[in-house]
Amino acid sequence: MYYPAMLVNGTHYRTVWLEGQVVKMINQPLIPHDFKIHLCMNHKETAVAISTMIIRGAGAIGAAAGYGLAQAALEAPEDDFSAYVKDAFETIKNTRPTAQNLFYALERVNKAILRSSSPETARQNGVNEAEAIADEDAASCKRIGELGEALIKDGFRILTHCNAGWLAFVDWGSAISPVYSAKRSGKKVFVWVDETRPRCQGARLTAWELLEEGVDNAVIADNASGYYMHKGEVDMVIVGSDRIAANGDVANKIGTYEKAVLAKENNIPFYVAAPTSTIDWNCPTGESIPIEERGEEEVLGIFGRDENNEVRRVFITPRGTKARNPAFDVTPAGYITGIITEKGIIKPGELRKAKENVK
Amino acid sequence: MYYPAMLVNGTHYRTVWLEGQVVKMINQPLIPHDFKIHLCMNHKETAVAISTMIIRGAGAIGAAAGYGLAQAALEAPEDDFSAYVKDAFETIKNTRPTAQNLFYALERVNKAILRSSSPETARQNGVNEAEAIADEDAASCKRIGELGEALIKDGFRILTHCNAGWLAFVDWGSAISPVYSAKRSGKKVFVWVDETRPRCQGARLTAWELLEEGVDNAVIADNASGYYMHKGEVDMVIVGSDRIAANGDVANKIGTYEKAVLAKENNIPFYVAAPTSTIDWNCPTGESIPIEERGEEEVLGIFGRDENNEVRRVFITPRGTKARNPAFDVTPAGYITGIITEKGIIKPGELRKAKENVK
Repeated sequence: MYYPAMLVNGTHYRTVWLEGQVVKMINQPLIPHDFKIHLCMNHKETAVAISTMIIRGAGAIGAAAGYGLAQAALEAPEDDFSAYVKDAFETIKNTRPTAQNLFYALERVNKAILRSSSPETARQNGVNEAEAIADEDAASCKRIGELGEALIKDGFRILTHCNAGWLAFVDWGSAISPVYSAKRSGKKVFVWVDETRPRCQGARLTAWELLEEGVDNAVIADNASGYYMHKGEVDMVIVGSDRIAANGDVANKIGTYEKAVLAKENNIPFYVAAPTSTIDWNCPTGESIPIEERGEEEVLGIFGRDENNEVRRVFITPRGTKARNPAFDVTPAGYITGIITEKGIIKPGELRKAKENVK
Repeated sequence: MYYPAMLVNGTHYRTVWLEGQVVKMINQPLIPHDFKIHLCMNHKETAVAISTMIIRGAGAIGAAAGYGLAQAALEAPEDDFSAYVKDAFETIKNTRPTAQNLFYALERVNKAILRSSSPETARQNGVNEAEAIADEDAASCKRIGELGEALIKDGFRILTHCNAGWLAFVDWGSAISPVYSAKRSGKKVFVWVDETRPRCQGARLTAWELLEEGVDNAVIADNASGYYMHKGEVDMVIVGSDRIAANGDVANKIGTYEKAVLAKENNIPFYVAAPTSTIDWNCPTGESIPIEERGEEEVLGIFGRDENNEVRRVFITPRGTKARNPAFDVTPAGYITGIITEKGIIKPGELRKAKENVK
């Protein structure tokens, strides 16, 4: 039986799916203040949804990109099929530079389309491949939960950064999946939730997931995680990843590097949880991973719910203030205790060696 | 000539001062959205202004506490003078547990009152002592700027956390004072401003000070400072302090410990700037410094200016979310390159040795 990670108001949702020619997804910027399904009527709307982060998170971006390219095949005119799909490939590819799962899914769906003998079969193959990617993502994340749970002892206090829960994937999640497994196995587990400025994916999304699932947790300012590590109140750290280089360097949400350095300084195990689709075998080290810099308005302001339940942005800084907004950073392999994949827990330095088993 | 650190709309302000029996202060939670002077009509209102952080920052809290006790002496009835002042001492003492300057100023003003032969002279002595503390704070901070400037090379990119600018003291500031000195000496200097969640003193106050003074800067999420350190774009870190233990351990705004660990990991000099009034000689190590935990609403929400220029709080997290909110952390002496005081730059491990020169 497929056991969904989480129900929303009694109904099981995946973060993204295809219905006919429409890509549907949970509108993530609205969470936790509202729960709405965002409709992308064509592949261009799907690309915009990825770039504006209506959908975000490694696996969820990948699945959306795969569906987007399948959607392009469904839209493409018979007499201009290949050029249309090629153009769509580029459009979707250029949405987020750091996310490996995006390129992984695009390549797979594109290959499925290219190997087809007619537009008709290409459409079916594209859709099938996109569905397979989404299904594999959900299954891999479930397995990551089972494998990662072995690391969690009863009573553990786990720190996580950003959101690598089920909202960041198709289902289950990566970093939070072991927590869900542990909870359902009856272990007592507590999660320190880094707020994760500037977009607050921890405070908004991870806190919401954990609250819905009944996992004991506390949101903290990103500044406070080192404090609790130093006090001995963090037993392990688990984060997700947007791209893993072949040498085990890991790109993830900005601030992950800080947490990794602090974990090492305080002798706390630091794990990265990610499906193998996040590994970029063509990327030798973290130096080669492009880091997306986003708009400064994300730092200058913040979205939230006001006293009248209206969701609005407020600005924190003086008018005229400049900001810098790198969305990711790279954590060198040396800070990482292990990478929890669906195929096993791998030491980052042994990733290359494990390649043949993992790939 | 007394050269004020900064003018506001063409007028020089100190952060706090006494006029007759009224303690006046810049209302800091309103900055940068509004500039208003908050009036405390009696010592109880001054105590509330300290505990609710209408005034905050090491030296500013100290000066306000000193003025508050002087104000109590001015208010105290002749027939119950000593008991009234003693009661006020306790009220003001219990506002903020971590801030050493608060205890320092209270003790000095209290001694000046106690050594007086009559309520009449006690009132005058109390006011004089409070004024002396404020003047010394401004002079010490100016000197910290001159001494600290020697560490700043032309073109330096300096990271700071929280606000230890002039708003945190009576004038000039501690961590930012060397930056002002460098700027006025014609050096090119750039400041990385940590946002400093949860109360955003960096994004609100430091950014405002630097903008007013014309110092080039960029606000970053607290998560991004490690990224820029690792990239080699930070030449030094300067922060303030709320209390320094005799062994050189330093309490400062939550997140300071993280920045210190990251600076050490990346071989970046990490300086603490503070007047000697911040040193607690009775406190052997950082372990003995009480860490204030503030209300969780500071983490769950944020204040800012909305599209209609209204300052309002928005909530980021789902309803029912719990948060933890330690306001300070302790950075062990081993991470600190030097402490910039008005009496010289001291290695934290040599603080005890320097005590006789410094005290």
